[in-house]
Amino acid sequence: MRAREINKGILFIIDGLGDRPLNELNDKTPLEFAETPVMDSLADEGVTGIVDPLSVGMRVGTDVGCLALFGYEPLKSYSGRGPIEAYGVGMELGVGDVALRANFSTVNGEGKLTHRRAGRIREGTDELASALDGMELSDGVEVSFRSGTDHRAVLMLRGRNLSPNISDSDPGVNMVGVPPKEVIPTDRTDNAVRTSGLVNEFLLKARDILKGHPVNKKRIEEGLPPANAIITRGAGIPKVLDTVMEKFNIRGGCVAAESTIIGIGKMAGFNIYTDPSMTGNLDTDISTKMNLVLKALSENDLVICHIKGTDIAAHYGDYRAKTEFIARIDKELGEILREIKVEGVYISISADHSTSCLVREHTADPVPTLLWGYDVMRDDTKSYSERETAKGGLNRISANGLILTLLDYIGATHRFGD
Amino acid sequence: MRAREINKGILFIIDGLGDRPLNELNDKTPLEFAETPVMDSLADEGVTGIVDPLSVGMRVGTDVGCLALFGYEPLKSYSGRGPIEAYGVGMELGVGDVALRANFSTVNGEGKLTHRRAGRIREGTDELASALDGMELSDGVEVSFRSGTDHRAVLMLRGRNLSPNISDSDPGVNMVGVPPKEVIPTDRTDNAVRTSGLVNEFLLKARDILKGHPVNKKRIEEGLPPANAIITRGAGIPKVLDTVMEKFNIRGGCVAAESTIIGIGKMAGFNIYTDPSMTGNLDTDISTKMNLVLKALSENDLVICHIKGTDIAAHYGDYRAKTEFIARIDKELGEILREIKVEGVYISISADHSTSCLVREHTADPVPTLLWGYDVMRDDTKSYSERETAKGGLNRISANGLILTLLDYIGATHRFGD
Repeated sequence: MRAREINKGILFIIDGLGDRPLNELNDKTPLEFAETPVMDSLADEGVTGIVDPLSVGMRVGTDVGCLALFGYEPLKSYSGRGPIEAYGVGMELGVGDVALRANFSTVNGEGKLTHRRAGRIREGTDELASALDGMELSDGVEVSFRSGTDHRAVLMLRGRNLSPNISDSDPGVNMVGVPPKEVIPTDRTDNAVRTSGLVNEFLLKARDILKGHPVNKKRIEEGLPPANAIITRGAGIPKVLDTVMEKFNIRGGCVAAESTIIGIGKMAGFNIYTDPSMTGNLDTDISTKMNLVLKALSENDLVICHIKGTDIAAHYGDYRAKTEFIARIDKELGEILREIKVEGVYISISADHSTSCLVREHTADPVPTLLWGYDVMRDDTKSYSERETAKGGLNRISANGLILTLLDYIGATHRFGD
Repeated sequence: MRAREINKGILFIIDGLGDRPLNELNDKTPLEFAETPVMDSLADEGVTGIVDPLSVGMRVGTDVGCLALFGYEPLKSYSGRGPIEAYGVGMELGVGDVALRANFSTVNGEGKLTHRRAGRIREGTDELASALDGMELSDGVEVSFRSGTDHRAVLMLRGRNLSPNISDSDPGVNMVGVPPKEVIPTDRTDNAVRTSGLVNEFLLKARDILKGHPVNKKRIEEGLPPANAIITRGAGIPKVLDTVMEKFNIRGGCVAAESTIIGIGKMAGFNIYTDPSMTGNLDTDISTKMNLVLKALSENDLVICHIKGTDIAAHYGDYRAKTEFIARIDKELGEILREIKVEGVYISISADHSTSCLVREHTADPVPTLLWGYDVMRDDTKSYSERETAKGGLNRISANGLILTLLDYIGATHRFGD
């Protein structure tokens, strides 16, 4: 029903990009402080604005922020983080399966957590996961367990009468010195009672298996915290989402390293472009990512590229690292600019949420956003920053509104009414 | 329940007014390029903003955009275009009736569409419609058929067990060289199967009748495409809407030529002001329209005036015509300005949606909007354009928000809460 040819669009999601002014940066934000001539030129020639991931004043996780930027309404489509991570690590979820996020973590002799992420373990997690995968629980319930990025993993239970309405065993960010929590049902159904019991059973058996695992013996020898326990959170059952092809009749390409984003991309029917050199961390290979953007752009109508390092740096409160990482993104973006800044391609830069280096957490601050294209109306804003984009021609919109606007420019939206 | 006297308000809906920058206009939009001293002065002295017809990034039709500007929430109140058009041409719809938009169109000897609008036929459509009106279909279902503006017409079926869930026979914009589509049910009910069969029966019989009609014989002699077939779309059943009197306890006047707007105006309980010199096209008599605004203002509390030409020009990609038409509106508005720019009257100018001369289609771009009144807070914006109003004091609001704001200024809204 579209009256014109499809153009193409690229959306860069710079994770946790938005921030607050810092004394140490002369009351500038990391984005204001960083050298970003490429992004500034796009902001100058295009239109800018500020974007609320979900709604004003609402803090969101990367999953919810990205779900919105991938074209879904999170309040309708969000099914918990577990299923997203499960898709992200390549699991096949069926109706009735329950998926949970898991961390490899470290407990001491008294069973108290000493490291929530087992020292952000990066090596040997595949072997550890294999040792847990395929475990049989009571009533014939089957376990699938797979490792993700760094310390992250996914636990899936398959069997009859399972429920996602169970609590987390993860006691929460910064909670060390306490034992993992017992999983309890969060409603009064027999299924939730039973499922929480099954997860507790898994967690106990997992400790037995991990304790003597060669990977952990080696870690102890090297003075590293052993990954001798699992903590879980975000139980959910899969929701079937319309794919980007079904919703907008376009091909989508997702360039990402982190399993959350790959999971959302898969759920949304995007073709996935990834590479082991992209780590989802500060040491990621941004150049490879940018080259994958070019490849994805040649094979799709809409390309979404996610870059994680900014968020990681901010969670550590490392504003220098965040600033430098932003400058690196800008430089690498400059390398492919000539190939993407052409008629018929629309470029947007935004974020899934803000992460404050001061708070060391996601905040509800709206994220700086720009949109560039050959018939996009240039506004008065000259650079790409939180402060400048707040004066932009897009004004203040939601993340869902942003992706719909980009889709409208590429000619992929449907008209409501006649 | 109102604590103050009613003031009066005028809303001008300039159809498809919003646009994008064009190279040919020195990267200005048609509205920026056009000479509009009158609208600029209202923007200067009043407050401006940008308005999303429905929500950010959502393309809408004139029907949906106007429904919102007439005070309704389209997602709740939209019943398909057919019933709106039926009200527009003066049909009386009853419960269970199904109404469809129809075009007079031209098919060749092989039954393929050659002109979707029979060359935008304007004369003789009443006689052609009369020849189809009153036709009896199977099972005693009665046909009402009435002509609208230009090539437009309305088909109504009255009988038992009818369903609006049927497809369009119109193959779509720019689709010529193909036969009209067979109408099929869009759900699995017997009523939808039966109704689609009845419409197909009507379309077949209509061709027989139109083929030999004197109006068409004359058109062929004159070298014009004969209106020898009907194509249909937008089947719907009437929804009963609260009138403007019921909702806001005010009298509404609607100045319009096009049957869609007249239909919405009637559904909304507005008094209709129209005149044959207003064509709903580029050759419309804007001066007559402005004089009807004065008349309507003396007899009502809220006047909505719709002007179509801008949208028509943009659909043709004719940015010169759009620019000139905007300048004409400005000039004619200037002629009545002294009589409406008075204390107690609030003036707003907005649009039902944007129509890009480049895309030649509606886009989701927000529409430039101004609001003038003696106690409206003047902002810094000095002129009326997409770019300038994006910096205005109203910020970015929805069409529904705009009309409620205007109603609030005239003192007609209710307070929620005590």
